[in-house]
Amino acid sequence: MKLLRVGTVGAESPALLDETGVLRDLSDTVRDIDGTLLADDAALARIRAAAASGGLPALDADGLRIGPPVARIGKVVCIGLNYHDHARETGAATPEEPIIFMKAPDTVVGPDDTVLVPRGSVKTDWEVELAVVIGRTARYLETDEQALAAVAGYAVAHDVSERAFQIERGGQWDKGKNCETFNPLGPWLVTADEVPDPQALGVRLWVNGELKQDGTTAEQIFPVAEVVRYVSQFMTLYPGDVINTGTPAGVAMGQPEPKPYLRAGDVVELEIDGLGRQRQELASA
Amino acid sequence: MKLLRVGTVGAESPALLDETGVLRDLSDTVRDIDGTLLADDAALARIRAAAASGGLPALDADGLRIGPPVARIGKVVCIGLNYHDHARETGAATPEEPIIFMKAPDTVVGPDDTVLVPRGSVKTDWEVELAVVIGRTARYLETDEQALAAVAGYAVAHDVSERAFQIERGGQWDKGKNCETFNPLGPWLVTADEVPDPQALGVRLWVNGELKQDGTTAEQIFPVAEVVRYVSQFMTLYPGDVINTGTPAGVAMGQPEPKPYLRAGDVVELEIDGLGRQRQELASA
Repeated sequence: MKLLRVGTVGAESPALLDETGVLRDLSDTVRDIDGTLLADDAALARIRAAAASGGLPALDADGLRIGPPVARIGKVVCIGLNYHDHARETGAATPEEPIIFMKAPDTVVGPDDTVLVPRGSVKTDWEVELAVVIGRTARYLETDEQALAAVAGYAVAHDVSERAFQIERGGQWDKGKNCETFNPLGPWLVTADEVPDPQALGVRLWVNGELKQDGTTAEQIFPVAEVVRYVSQFMTLYPGDVINTGTPAGVAMGQPEPKPYLRAGDVVELEIDGLGRQRQELASA
Repeated sequence: MKLLRVGTVGAESPALLDETGVLRDLSDTVRDIDGTLLADDAALARIRAAAASGGLPALDADGLRIGPPVARIGKVVCIGLNYHDHARETGAATPEEPIIFMKAPDTVVGPDDTVLVPRGSVKTDWEVELAVVIGRTARYLETDEQALAAVAGYAVAHDVSERAFQIERGGQWDKGKNCETFNPLGPWLVTADEVPDPQALGVRLWVNGELKQDGTTAEQIFPVAEVVRYVSQFMTLYPGDVINTGTPAGVAMGQPEPKPYLRAGDVVELEIDGLGRQRQELASA
């Protein structure tokens, strides 16, 4: 299923994109799409049954804003340098184990919402990523099977990053990762049953129409199952948590000087095979 | 005012510790103590009026669990190496600007809840910290006055840290900061009007009855106002967000070998002048 949330900021309602591409209203079927729903097999079955019965009302997609596909996200865990080609372009050694950093859930916005270049920023960069949405509490998992069973689904994430804040301002990467609007998510949460192999997805990003990232999750150093299993050794993952699994090569930081960092007015488009497409216009904070 | 939340995990109700030391039930006065309340001057005034009228029912504190004093925390921002004496003991240079890292809100537990030593941990360490609780949205603040006006109040925080996960496992500190139960908070949220000078607070921590940290917020490299103002340049702070402002000298990592890292069965007690006292027993995850 492709689950999403539509409506104005903070007042989104749950919806489904059906197999014919028609948007269906879920607001009489479930309260919202959040960790509680994703952990509730009966509620998910209710959506499936309602969709199959043809009884869900169609929604007019015209002019409708799409919000983040998950409400009340508990935490956003990010994996750094998780693609062989991206590690090479940044000049970093291939990590021996996953690098973990965090984004605050309040950085998450809808897939087509405006992204704000922070005040004082001269190195705002793009990163298209496969996001994993957790559906089961995951704690000290032992096997890949347990890890994949904890995954509710997948989505496109944009891990927007300010490189000067991240690297040149002392300390930890988090300083360049938590600016407001820095984590567009969606359009859809695609349930895991519809993503048989998360390591075979094309991942692409354009800036002002020019293809900048053209990768595949096959290049991930630590695949999704390993990432979930690994993260669960260091923190407990809860339903509705999100893991951004890293970005392939092609970010601005990896380009020759002068590096083409983002500015107000730029347009970024992102897509992952089967997970939909985002489009953000940049503006000044 | 000293605001707190009492009851079983996930079912806490709001309470007030009055000036005579009697616990008062606030559950008929406000819904909960969270960002929404802290941003609502009328609701805070309602609590003050109810307390002054003497009409709030007394609660029997006996056997009552105290939860974290803030519900639905949006994010926990942490400042690293923010005491001159702690920077020295870790061998790190005094930071030129604040170091920021993040803890997930799901690490927050009550002040006397059990703290779990993670599986595989041999370097679980203590850090008593002054926590700042945000009451107003803070974004690109310019002055110390604006920064302090955004503070709803203060609390004791325990920024439990796994040093091997934090430092020896590749990448960012977050890996050793986000284990479950790693952020006891409370017992109270003391409103800012009762903390006239946050830079004049004694900060102490004991392990098994032995005083390990005995500092003062006067030693902070970046005082509270500067921390809030600085953080607001990199991320937007929202009501109900928490900032852990760093720890003074005396952590296990700073001791001679063999360093006395925490083990199951140890008891840690923490206090800050005017903000109350915590007591945690360590157990195995």
